Amino acid sequence: MANSKYEYVREFETDDKLLRNVYILVRIDGKGFHKFSAAHEFTKPNDIRALNLMNHAARSVMHELDDILIAFGESDEFSFLFRKSTDLYQRREAKIVSTVVSLFTSAYVYYWSDYFQDSKRPLYPPVFDGRAVLYPSEVEVKDYFAWRQADTHINNLFNTSFWALVEKGGLTPKAAEVRLSGTDSKDKNEMLFTEFNTNYSKLPAIFRKGSVLLRGSIPKDMAKDAIIPTLPETLPGSTYADAAPSTEPSAQSDGPATATEPEVTQRDSGGDNKRQYRGDDDDNDDDELDSDGAEAKEDDNKGSRKLGDGVDEKRPALKRIKKGVVIEHIDIIGEKFWTGAGAYILAPEKKKKLKTKK
Amino acid sequence: MANSKYEYVREFETDDKLLRNVYILVRIDGKGFHKFSAAHEFTKPNDIRALNLMNHAARSVMHELDDILIAFGESDEFSFLFRKSTDLYQRREAKIVSTVVSLFTSAYVYYWSDYFQDSKRPLYPPVFDGRAVLYPSEVEVKDYFAWRQADTHINNLFNTSFWALVEKGGLTPKAAEVRLSGTDSKDKNEMLFTEFNTNYSKLPAIFRKGSVLLRGSIPKDMAKDAIIPTLPETLPGSTYADAAPSTEPSAQSDGPATATEPEVTQRDSGGDNKRQYRGDDDDNDDDELDSDGAEAKEDDNKGSRKLGDGVDEKRPALKRIKKGVVIEHIDIIGEKFWTGAGAYILAPEKKKKLKTKK
Amino acid sequence: MANSKYEYVREFETDDKLLRNVYILVRIDGKGFHKFSAAHEFTKPNDIRALNLMNHAARSVMHELDDILIAFGESDEFSFLFRKSTDLYQRREAKIVSTVVSLFTSAYVYYWSDYFQDSKRPLYPPVFDGRAVLYPSEVEVKDYFAWRQADTHINNLFNTSFWALVEKGGLTPKAAEVRLSGTDSKDKNEMLFTEFNTNYSKLPAIFRKGSVLLRGSIPKDMAKDAIIPTLPETLPGSTYADAAPSTEPSAQSDGPATATEPEVTQRDSGGDNKRQYRGDDDDNDDDELDSDGAEAKEDDNKGSRKLGDGVDEKRPALKRIKKGVVIEHIDIIGEKFWTGAGAYILAPEKKKKLKTKK
Amino acid sequence: MANSKYEYVREFETDDKLLRNVYILVRIDGKGFHKFSAAHEFTKPNDIRALNLMNHAARSVMHELDDILIAFGESDEFSFLFRKSTDLYQRREAKIVSTVVSLFTSAYVYYWSDYFQDSKRPLYPPVFDGRAVLYPSEVEVKDYFAWRQADTHINNLFNTSFWALVEKGGLTPKAAEVRLSGTDSKDKNEMLFTEFNTNYSKLPAIFRKGSVLLRGSIPKDMAKDAIIPTLPETLPGSTYADAAPSTEPSAQSDGPATATEPEVTQRDSGGDNKRQYRGDDDDNDDDELDSDGAEAKEDDNKGSRKLGDGVDEKRPALKRIKKGVVIEHIDIIGEKFWTGAGAYILAPEKKKKLKTKK
Repeated sequence: MANSKYEYVREFETDDKLLRNVYILVRIDGKGFHKFSAAHEFTKPNDIRALNLMNHAARSVMHELDDILIAFGESDEFSFLFRKSTDLYQRREAKIVSTVVSLFTSAYVYYWSDYFQDSKRPLYPPVFDGRAVLYPSEVEVKDYFAWRQADTHINNLFNTSFWALVEKGGLTPKAAEVRLSGTDSKDKNEMLFTEFNTNYSKLPAIFRKGSVLLRGSIPKDMAKDAIIPTLPETLPGSTYADAAPSTEPSAQSDGPATATEPEVTQRDSGGDNKRQYRGDDDDNDDDELDSDGAEAKEDDNKGSRKLGDGVDEKRPALKRIKKGVVIEHIDIIGEKFWTGAGAYILAPEKKKKLKTKK
Repeated sequence: MANSKYEYVREFETDDKLLRNVYILVRIDGKGFHKFSAAHEFTKPNDIRALNLMNHAARSVMHELDDILIAFGESDEFSFLFRKSTDLYQRREAKIVSTVVSLFTSAYVYYWSDYFQDSKRPLYPPVFDGRAVLYPSEVEVKDYFAWRQADTHINNLFNTSFWALVEKGGLTPKAAEVRLSGTDSKDKNEMLFTEFNTNYSKLPAIFRKGSVLLRGSIPKDMAKDAIIPTLPETLPGSTYADAAPSTEPSAQSDGPATATEPEVTQRDSGGDNKRQYRGDDDDNDDDELDSDGAEAKEDDNKGSRKLGDGVDEKRPALKRIKKGVVIEHIDIIGEKFWTGAGAYILAPEKKKKLKTKK
Repeated sequence: MANSKYEYVREFETDDKLLRNVYILVRIDGKGFHKFSAAHEFTKPNDIRALNLMNHAARSVMHELDDILIAFGESDEFSFLFRKSTDLYQRREAKIVSTVVSLFTSAYVYYWSDYFQDSKRPLYPPVFDGRAVLYPSEVEVKDYFAWRQADTHINNLFNTSFWALVEKGGLTPKAAEVRLSGTDSKDKNEMLFTEFNTNYSKLPAIFRKGSVLLRGSIPKDMAKDAIIPTLPETLPGSTYADAAPSTEPSAQSDGPATATEPEVTQRDSGGDNKRQYRGDDDDNDDDELDSDGAEAKEDDNKGSRKLGDGVDEKRPALKRIKKGVVIEHIDIIGEKFWTGAGAYILAPEKKKKLKTKK
Repeated sequence: MANSKYEYVREFETDDKLLRNVYILVRIDGKGFHKFSAAHEFTKPNDIRALNLMNHAARSVMHELDDILIAFGESDEFSFLFRKSTDLYQRREAKIVSTVVSLFTSAYVYYWSDYFQDSKRPLYPPVFDGRAVLYPSEVEVKDYFAWRQADTHINNLFNTSFWALVEKGGLTPKAAEVRLSGTDSKDKNEMLFTEFNTNYSKLPAIFRKGSVLLRGSIPKDMAKDAIIPTLPETLPGSTYADAAPSTEPSAQSDGPATATEPEVTQRDSGGDNKRQYRGDDDDNDDDELDSDGAEAKEDDNKGSRKLGDGVDEKRPALKRIKKGVVIEHIDIIGEKFWTGAGAYILAPEKKKKLKTKK
């Protein structure tokens, strides 16, 4: 860069490296999404298109950043957990947070029309903010995700009850709020059942439990790829980038549960389906996105895909497959998850002492 | 929020409020844009579509965040200066940085097809990162922007020379680099003139000087609105959101200079065209995007605009007009700018002592 | 240091450099001094020995750290203002704060017996804590010191009234508190005057206004040295180290005001006695204490002064004289101070741009 | 405090709370101790008086701050490890660091004359600085102390060799340095043995291994108190404050090893002498020093001790006894220590979840 006499202004930059050897949690939130959802007439209390778009964006983040172990999303927020030993951007806080937020936002706008198929783009650009929090121990990590899922439950039960009273019961919003004030979970469950013939526990798990994004292996039978919601659609130049959306939203026409839940029920069984996750230390450098790009470009060449047009037969490169991300809607409160499907998350990392920089 | 037994994990969040009463500078950078520009076949050494899209995204950021005084962009980076007394998000660093980066990224993807008109969206979602730097005094602020513009000059002169050698001179990139090594500005200027018949100083100012985004008043003659590149196109629901792009890129078909420079030459004259800028303290709260949204919705009602369709006669609400942002390509190195067009930027703020929170 | 395989633990150290070009204010406070003063039977409401010892310790800090422009003390607290451009310890926060606190504490214990002459040392080691605060502008610096002096006034008026009621009026502490609750300054002044024949404004200024430590020149007439409380008593090995205390406390037998206030009244006149202060950039390195020590030793040799006895013909080295610190008890609320005796404090520093480290 | 219009300046104070649930390590270092030791003619390469004074000061710190688990000292530095869950000063960094440094400095000056018996106080006030480092895991804690003890070994072997060459071998410092350059541990050991008849491994452990301060129980037999170097000598008003020093230094006349090492050999045996340490959660509040003082005052009353005079029969309060600190000179590199005498240090803390503040 210009080595001018003005360059001293760089001295005002501060070092914001995060403490080593602790978990880094990045949580992002939609800004002004009350208005955004109203403007776009999101279905109340949950809009499956919006939730799937959130999940798609989160998966894009996990595809790019290998050191994310798990993500959890509900409503307009998403949490991403980085492994303790990540050296992504030398653990610089602003770099990490801004990259996650930018990736997420970018994917959200990018894939919008795949989920809201009657519009090319939203009415105006949506915005998310984010922050990083450090968690030193496994206990806190478990409790963090339990906190978010408990929040999902409480909010969704309230919202489901509220909108039942308003949309089916004919109450004003004000009256519905009064009616619900002071009620506990049992009260609301019962009200839904007796007054609105709704068995809350039978509602789609994505609404009740939020979405859990895990690292998973792609089944050996590659033919299954087409229906697995872990397509490497963020691959630059990948044919899947365009192919994926048309598959997914149409699958959703059968209802959200069928599109995503088959995986869930299978995986909900616990201990015997532990995954293997191997973080790829080798591409955690500052140019990650570039280096991924390099791969991507190769894919592109192999894939002979052309800008602007459609589908192509070629498979994504093998490396990407290792990074498969599966979306589930399961309980993450309680040990069952952390010893089962989530066992790889808190497993001790290969002991690799930090080296002193010369 | 769920007031569960897990909520203690919030105690691990840290307070990241930035020091008060100093300038906050947020700089964002494209990640992996070397690859991104290659993948999308950006014109070398400058792609006017890409630069205009950057400017459009930056203007969107300034439209939303009233406390930004000036922005400067070149290549794939943009710098935003917040006024000293901003209390945006209570000066929380992560909130400020992530919001700026998200807004910018969102707008970049959102308006992509208005500038790259043959494609609906880029090949893959682009990503930016960002960081905040604090500058206590006016001297550093001036020198910061001088640093960036000096960088623009040096890089652009090198790139112009390099690509002339490669594309017109037939040299390999390697050979071009060798040829240029050790040369100074004068050497490169002369080479461009004698060998490639190029008068460097006549190249479009946007390439040589980057882009300066300033707060400006909209001329009283509202009919001029159509040609002023400060349309409030980020207004949610505004008819201008869709109208603007079709205007702008077509204007660019006459070349970048004509589209944006008339303003520049007029304004380049200095002292007599000082602008008045009044920061709107009243909407710097945490819900800025929401509250803007509230206005926007009003506009929407007035404008009777419909999702997905086109143009409309109604004017944007008056308040937005005050926030006009003009894009110029002028010298910001030297006092002339800071006493002329930029005089409002470092003008003393109304003395308003910070209040102690109770 | 041992370059062992364990040395990687240093990587957990964080960079705590304070923002450049802003004032650094370090404030220290006695810990548990309510108890400490009770245990040592400090006179109520003010113990002149304790205040003079505080001032002595603060002066030692200013003798060692040239970049401190002014200090202000009251009760068991002291504030030290560093100039904006200080590069002491590369502005590392922990280094700066811990050094000031350690220096102060060390001197407090060291000089104890010079002020509390019937005891070799306190009953137990006293403790202070400290913190740094950054102030970007002159306005805040003035208001900071105004805040502390207003605090001095309010506390001292209350304490004076309280102890008058208890010690002279025979009230219980409880009753005294009840009596004072709801009273304003005027009420207390009047009560002191009518009930206890005390004209509050005639009490020693050190009680009412606290102590202001300023950089000052030593008068040319060196004979005056003996009575100037700016003896370089922290000089290692200097005879002044021991000489000073014996002078000072005995002077105090005439009451605190006479010992220190003649200076004050003279200097209180304002504009015509501006001091000249030239920060010594050259010895702000990491080894400051060492290098000062080195000088000091030289002085000692040259001066051939003798430990334990009184006056001596040799002058201290010239450099030390420049660092003279004078103690005053004057108003620092209001412009008179900042344009008069304190004018050097906020005077613009010689423009010296920060250099970029290679 | 004064709730004046100036109080807004407090808003510039920043929150410096350290991350929860990680170990806090505070390391302090003497400033300019090369000069300080020369000025006071410290014995080379080790001065047992100076080392014992350092240990005494460190023990004072541990007596006041119950959450320190272990301390390690060598030369002019000391490291203090706080337990993960400490809430001392709400984990505010500046408070913690400055308090430790102040306590240490205060005690160092306070007890000086007990170790350097021919002088009332040093030639000038000594100064220490300090800093905090966070360590998330047990591995790093072990490696931290291994790092410091390895440093002790390397430095002491070098210094012992260097001063043997200079003081016994008659070499100039320059020549001694040349002689030692390039030698390894074995070379130095051999040189000491063959040329200076010195078996390095027989030198006092305090020189070779530094000093380890551990929490220990006071033997039930209270009569032993007199010889245990864990007397609560910092107790305000305690008779032990004065009694202790006269005991200790005289014990040292037998050589440092006998005074402190009997403990060592016994405790060096490992597993069977695990200590029990119970952190006293209840007095970790902001007023720790005060509340300790409250106890102390009680002692004082009971003990009817008078300022300045001597010995008294009364025992210190029981609570203090629990806080016994023992000084050892043992290996802390390797598992033997951490499963033996040091086992309590890294033992899991009683699970006590942090509570959310309302």
